[in-house]
Amino acid sequence: MKHYDLIVLGGGPAGYIAAERAAALGKKVLLAEKKAIGGTCLNEGCIPTKSLLYGAKIYHQSRNSASLGVMAREVTFDLEAAMKHKASVISTLQKGILGQLKRLGVELRTGEGRFLRPGLVSIDGEEIQGRFILLAQGSSSARPPIPGSRENPRVVTSTEILEIRERPKRLAVIGGGYIGMEFAAFFASIGTDVTVIEMMPEIIPTLDPEMARNLRSHLPGITFRRGYRVDRIQEGTLHISPVQSNSSATGAATGAATATGAETIQTDLILLATGRVSRAVEEGLGEAGVALHEGCVVVDEYLQTNLPGVYAAGDITGRMLLAHAAYRMGEVAVSHMFRGDSLPDGSKTAAGRQNWPNKMRFDTIPWVVFTSPEVAGCGLTAREANSRGYQTETVTLPLMVSGRYVAEHPRERGTVTVVVNARDRRLLGVQMLGSGTSEIIHSAAAMIETGWTVENLRKIVFPHPTVSEALRDALWAVPSGSPRDMTPHATGSERAVEAQNTDEPSKTPGTKTHRKDTNHA
Amino acid sequence: MKHYDLIVLGGGPAGYIAAERAAALGKKVLLAEKKAIGGTCLNEGCIPTKSLLYGAKIYHQSRNSASLGVMAREVTFDLEAAMKHKASVISTLQKGILGQLKRLGVELRTGEGRFLRPGLVSIDGEEIQGRFILLAQGSSSARPPIPGSRENPRVVTSTEILEIRERPKRLAVIGGGYIGMEFAAFFASIGTDVTVIEMMPEIIPTLDPEMARNLRSHLPGITFRRGYRVDRIQEGTLHISPVQSNSSATGAATGAATATGAETIQTDLILLATGRVSRAVEEGLGEAGVALHEGCVVVDEYLQTNLPGVYAAGDITGRMLLAHAAYRMGEVAVSHMFRGDSLPDGSKTAAGRQNWPNKMRFDTIPWVVFTSPEVAGCGLTAREANSRGYQTETVTLPLMVSGRYVAEHPRERGTVTVVVNARDRRLLGVQMLGSGTSEIIHSAAAMIETGWTVENLRKIVFPHPTVSEALRDALWAVPSGSPRDMTPHATGSERAVEAQNTDEPSKTPGTKTHRKDTNHA
Repeated sequence: MKHYDLIVLGGGPAGYIAAERAAALGKKVLLAEKKAIGGTCLNEGCIPTKSLLYGAKIYHQSRNSASLGVMAREVTFDLEAAMKHKASVISTLQKGILGQLKRLGVELRTGEGRFLRPGLVSIDGEEIQGRFILLAQGSSSARPPIPGSRENPRVVTSTEILEIRERPKRLAVIGGGYIGMEFAAFFASIGTDVTVIEMMPEIIPTLDPEMARNLRSHLPGITFRRGYRVDRIQEGTLHISPVQSNSSATGAATGAATATGAETIQTDLILLATGRVSRAVEEGLGEAGVALHEGCVVVDEYLQTNLPGVYAAGDITGRMLLAHAAYRMGEVAVSHMFRGDSLPDGSKTAAGRQNWPNKMRFDTIPWVVFTSPEVAGCGLTAREANSRGYQTETVTLPLMVSGRYVAEHPRERGTVTVVVNARDRRLLGVQMLGSGTSEIIHSAAAMIETGWTVENLRKIVFPHPTVSEALRDALWAVPSGSPRDMTPHATGSERAVEAQNTDEPSKTPGTKTHRKDTNHA
Repeated sequence: MKHYDLIVLGGGPAGYIAAERAAALGKKVLLAEKKAIGGTCLNEGCIPTKSLLYGAKIYHQSRNSASLGVMAREVTFDLEAAMKHKASVISTLQKGILGQLKRLGVELRTGEGRFLRPGLVSIDGEEIQGRFILLAQGSSSARPPIPGSRENPRVVTSTEILEIRERPKRLAVIGGGYIGMEFAAFFASIGTDVTVIEMMPEIIPTLDPEMARNLRSHLPGITFRRGYRVDRIQEGTLHISPVQSNSSATGAATGAATATGAETIQTDLILLATGRVSRAVEEGLGEAGVALHEGCVVVDEYLQTNLPGVYAAGDITGRMLLAHAAYRMGEVAVSHMFRGDSLPDGSKTAAGRQNWPNKMRFDTIPWVVFTSPEVAGCGLTAREANSRGYQTETVTLPLMVSGRYVAEHPRERGTVTVVVNARDRRLLGVQMLGSGTSEIIHSAAAMIETGWTVENLRKIVFPHPTVSEALRDALWAVPSGSPRDMTPHATGSERAVEAQNTDEPSKTPGTKTHRKDTNHA
């Protein structure tokens, strides 16, 4: 029977990165994938959507930049060309991954992999042994049991909508999470009449509500039905009605006053974007002894499951469901598997402790909603921080504090928010809304990882003129407990904490929100 | 006589930020500016150029994105509209700065400020006292003594070219540094026939030569005459000839074989972009006792001049001549002036030392060339690092490793380079070429500031799919001295350094350059 150091089940972001990392350590690795390399992300998710969205963005800009000097007539969007571009991007990237796996010596098997027990899998029926096994079979689109949604050719998931040949005149998107919103924004920008139906009182429920409202205000081409559920579908007709639940009450309180009675929506195409579900149950992992919780594989901070030598990473764990979180889970899992091989004596020194621990920290994983404008964040929102008991200082600035933003996006109303722990002055979270913020937010991950105080982070120099500077301005706008705003001072010490408590007598969690409505070049 | 805690001479980036920071500390601040608030950067530099460049970029994309689905006919560029937009951006940003200064209580005087002696300035003849004085009078465009360049209406500097009303049919740019290249790229992209004349063998001499070559290859609309000097100008005719110097020999070696004999160039407009010079001499600072070196104010790492209580910041010091370097100099100067007011006892603790010192570090200041594509960097290039005696590991990856880059810029050939100290595994520098890199490079500043090893920096999670991920990929592609590539290990200890020396017997500075020509989604 064949034997490997590591067998990876699933060739998506968690799986192929884990395979690459382990192979780079000199390990013998087998990667089993039943469909196409790259998983959902490359074949039906992140990459195809971004390939389409960029063309749609240029299309929009071409027609709306007269004030910048661009005079264009007769601009049209050719969906067929865009789809061809999308297919070409996927093919290029698949070749890239396959080339890298080959170069590193990873064995790739296209076939049906099954986890049997610790140390043993089968691929298309053949039993194969592995010292370690990584479960990385990913997730599938959720299909809610809406009457009339099955066997209705107008109802598609994010997978099928990426294969359509003609622009629909009307599109209904069921689910206003980030997947639904990215498709809604794409189709609205190329001229489709789009309606988004969301059960919760606000779109993208994980977002700060004010930011979600701001995002909606930038998408005038989309009709929103918030606080509504879809009761049934008849051909191209959706029957929707207000949600009768606790969340409906919340909705009313936060302004979802649109939910007043049953309605019908006529449409040509219906996108189900009601989330994704781990494939753990479908893959029979529970029967094979893997501990599951709500249908997802349970893992610890090193991505270990309950079974010895068996790890899980990516969407199968139900954690975050983002490709880059999956990458990192794959890396942490491999690092933990082979830690004994490589842990040097130096790890007992101060420098070694600085490098330790190599474990999963979900609070420093950034996220992006690739609408236009984009929304991006990392770490805790003020609300999340307060619910965890932090006393916070929160600053929101308009991106118009950046000269470049004023120069490039004079009609957009982007924002940057920083959330700081008021006691130790460390950065807890950053949220941004605006064009280009997707490429900026990784620095928030870096800054939160440092554990530095606001005072220290302010010393980092950002290039001018860039939109990224707005983040620096927000760090500078965080008020101090004392007039020591910009000086090199000790906030980690007990003394500093005491001093701040004197200035801010409230010992209960609470947020101070400061706004500055100015800008400078 | 009036008395202030701080008098700032010059209302550009160094001056107005210093005034803001000091006022935020509760200080009484006077800011004197003889022309418009915002200095060169806002009125005739960074901001107006970026306002124009963005329109030009959209103009170019509108006409060249058929493969992404954007079909545009009859796209034209309206320079008058673009200039109007530029003026509106400047006005918006001036109002923003003035509003912020007013809110903070900074007194603003429009008038001719003169430095007299420590503690004393005059503004339009009125003598005024200040505990501290900050010299921030900036720089002017250099005007090289080229025969025929004076009183020739076709010869302009970057100041005047920003006021032209009609697109020139032909433009000659004297000087291929970053200012010359930004204007060259702008005019070439709106259809002007542009020639750049550069004395050195390569454009943007501070850039890595390979990157400069790559940039040129992305600008097919520009004719380059490298290794040439302009001997004289007659109306619209430039007489140029090969440089006879050491740099010419270097030029031949690096491929500047274009320099073979004298030539003439016919043109409609001639832009002098041969650098900028500190205004220190023009402002009479030397006569007032301020120590100068090569016409620039000499400062230490706290921005102190030779005179007590007199600081200098920004272009007047001749250091870097970048707006964000000026911001930071202003901040460091103010922090040092008022350090006694605010330095807490905690600065003697470990946390305090972490925050200390608040001094100028030029090696962590990023820079950007806003051509299309952009070039951006921070820290040392491999060449600079080697010349300082570092043994380095250098990795260059194509930006095509990023799925988003493939999706958005399929025809661009961007790169990312990371330079790592081979002995302690710390990041020394990052250089990037490609669309959007200007908004990414600030994270390199943050990462270099941390002083973290490559192994630690790899733990930072970047959002997918973004171009920023290419930087993370480059960090992962740095080879280890041992197969401990991804493990949490101690590289700061003597032991680790010894181990690496064993693997790399060469004790002399040298670079290992690794390339990976793959990509993954």
